[in-house]
Amino acid sequence: MKFSIQRASFIKYLNDVQRAISSKTTIDILTGLKMDLSKDALTLTGSNSDISIETIISIADDNAALQIEQEGAVVLPARFFSEIVKKLPEQTMTIEINERFQATITSGSAEFTINGLNAEEYPHLPEIDSKDQLTVPGDILKQVISQTVIAVSNQESRPILTGIHLVIKNGELLAVATDSHRLSQRIIKLSGADDAVYDVIIPGKSLSELSKMISDSDENIEIQISENQALFILGNTSFYTRLLEGKYPDTERLIPKVSEITVDFNAVELLQSIERASLLSHEGRNNVVKLAINPSAQSVILSGNTPEVGNVEEELHFKNLEGSELEISFNPDYMKDALRSFGQSEITIAFTQPLRPFTIVPTEDKDNFVQLITPVRTF
Amino acid sequence: MKFSIQRASFIKYLNDVQRAISSKTTIDILTGLKMDLSKDALTLTGSNSDISIETIISIADDNAALQIEQEGAVVLPARFFSEIVKKLPEQTMTIEINERFQATITSGSAEFTINGLNAEEYPHLPEIDSKDQLTVPGDILKQVISQTVIAVSNQESRPILTGIHLVIKNGELLAVATDSHRLSQRIIKLSGADDAVYDVIIPGKSLSELSKMISDSDENIEIQISENQALFILGNTSFYTRLLEGKYPDTERLIPKVSEITVDFNAVELLQSIERASLLSHEGRNNVVKLAINPSAQSVILSGNTPEVGNVEEELHFKNLEGSELEISFNPDYMKDALRSFGQSEITIAFTQPLRPFTIVPTEDKDNFVQLITPVRTF
Repeated sequence: MKFSIQRASFIKYLNDVQRAISSKTTIDILTGLKMDLSKDALTLTGSNSDISIETIISIADDNAALQIEQEGAVVLPARFFSEIVKKLPEQTMTIEINERFQATITSGSAEFTINGLNAEEYPHLPEIDSKDQLTVPGDILKQVISQTVIAVSNQESRPILTGIHLVIKNGELLAVATDSHRLSQRIIKLSGADDAVYDVIIPGKSLSELSKMISDSDENIEIQISENQALFILGNTSFYTRLLEGKYPDTERLIPKVSEITVDFNAVELLQSIERASLLSHEGRNNVVKLAINPSAQSVILSGNTPEVGNVEEELHFKNLEGSELEISFNPDYMKDALRSFGQSEITIAFTQPLRPFTIVPTEDKDNFVQLITPVRTF
Repeated sequence: MKFSIQRASFIKYLNDVQRAISSKTTIDILTGLKMDLSKDALTLTGSNSDISIETIISIADDNAALQIEQEGAVVLPARFFSEIVKKLPEQTMTIEINERFQATITSGSAEFTINGLNAEEYPHLPEIDSKDQLTVPGDILKQVISQTVIAVSNQESRPILTGIHLVIKNGELLAVATDSHRLSQRIIKLSGADDAVYDVIIPGKSLSELSKMISDSDENIEIQISENQALFILGNTSFYTRLLEGKYPDTERLIPKVSEITVDFNAVELLQSIERASLLSHEGRNNVVKLAINPSAQSVILSGNTPEVGNVEEELHFKNLEGSELEISFNPDYMKDALRSFGQSEITIAFTQPLRPFTIVPTEDKDNFVQLITPVRTF
């Protein structure tokens, strides 16, 4: 195996594949990067127990300027190889693998020889045989992931809640996540999905990694789903993730259908107020802030009290306030995560009772995105 | 005590003083920021066991727009207070302290009340009574610190080596540090120091913190030295540090006066080559690279070999090479630190024998700056 390539372009591909490679795995060969050189392309593969990423560098890619002298395959230590590639002196580098899987990496007057492994020992990627061709714009998928992943549980005690539940039917994708204290649900249209019906749970961490790979140039992302894997195709790069097994809780019944009180805020302004109040609540044991809503006085007051440290009080700006009087306490960190997911939007918060979950939706599009937060009992 | 002030300006002063405040101290009141309001200025003070920083915000400072309503003093929890100040909604804030040392911090519709302490319980800053008025340009002092602090020891087993040795005499300042494996020495002219004679050891960590405070606008820094403290005055800010007690080793005799071999390099180019070779040495147990110098062939070859992982070899670019043949091994991390201290300069490396220390000096100014590295025995 022997080829030369432009380093800057190679590094870009390498960075993508490295997202799947962990140095902490117990399977030695998975700390490696697999390189497979055919007569017209170089394929890079990285994998861990959850995700696998494969990217193809074609000889037609002018930026990469891949020049193939001899086909072959090898597995090289990923972190160390990547550090070397990034430090080489010239724009071009040449890699040659001998019969003992040793790689000689040359660039200018610098020459590294490092030990590799037989690529035949590298595990095979899953095969996905999907009849449906689902596509979604990259920026929308990135948004859906960032909006729902915040409500994914970090606790392994209920593994199913560490995933995002995706339901595809009627040409729509519904994504929902909950850690049992809060919930986030987003619905989008999905092209090519008129007849497709899927119900899967994808690990939140996998989707976070996928999200980081989606760049502005990824116009459309193709999604394929099989029994225990999902595949996302971004241009020349394939992103595989395992699915979580089990049944996701019925979240539909958690979202209140009616409300007693509604208030409209600007998401950014409210976020800043909550951030201030949380400075104080973080100093105490309970991490709780209180909202006192008084429609007859047309006032909303945010407050916090941590006796050892001090207290905070702020009268909030709001747009519309309707309903009855209410005092409600909640974890400000959940509120911060939720508010950040709305960007600059105007939002509507709808309450029922002091100890019942409340919802946050965009004022202009109440049906397709909802964040739900369970209050905290403070008495 | 009551005053109002522009937040942006106050935060700048606060950040300076906070460098001296640690949340890890065992003396509770030292986790606080002392504020002392006189009729024409607000003084902020922070301190730990090594350094104290005091800064004065005058009513004449237009950016701060300090408005004093009532004089007084208080100590507030520094980290928490600073977080609050940074998150307040409006450009201006007002602080009022009541008789129980509670501070009410108001900005727009947000109001925090936090518990403070009696400023009379705060320790007094050292008094320094110096007859000499030594001054040094801020950029030069910053350079001297960055060039020498790299050779300071991190090991508390010989505490004296955790300091930088400063010798002032004959109108010059000599700064030297060594961790016994390497040494760095810099000499500069010092204004107002014709008759001054000092020999002190300042903790390297103190000088690192001082260095971070020196901005481009600090044209001249005044230095005052007493028996167990040094004081650096930067505009409105005073930086106090304790001195280390004891006798610094005689470093003068460590620097070789003659050499067998000299090679000139560009510091940046050599640094890049050393960084490459160290990628490999870091993977092994010994962290050593080798330089093979051959004047008759006019070649200098840098190499490293870590049998488990691989090897590296690079022919180096150099300017002049004189003397006899030599192979010498050293820790590449010491070399990287040393080379970075020369910036873009051309440097001259002078060797005597494979196991004797070698020196690196700027080719254009060999007398005022020297880095010394002790080689490693590899056989």
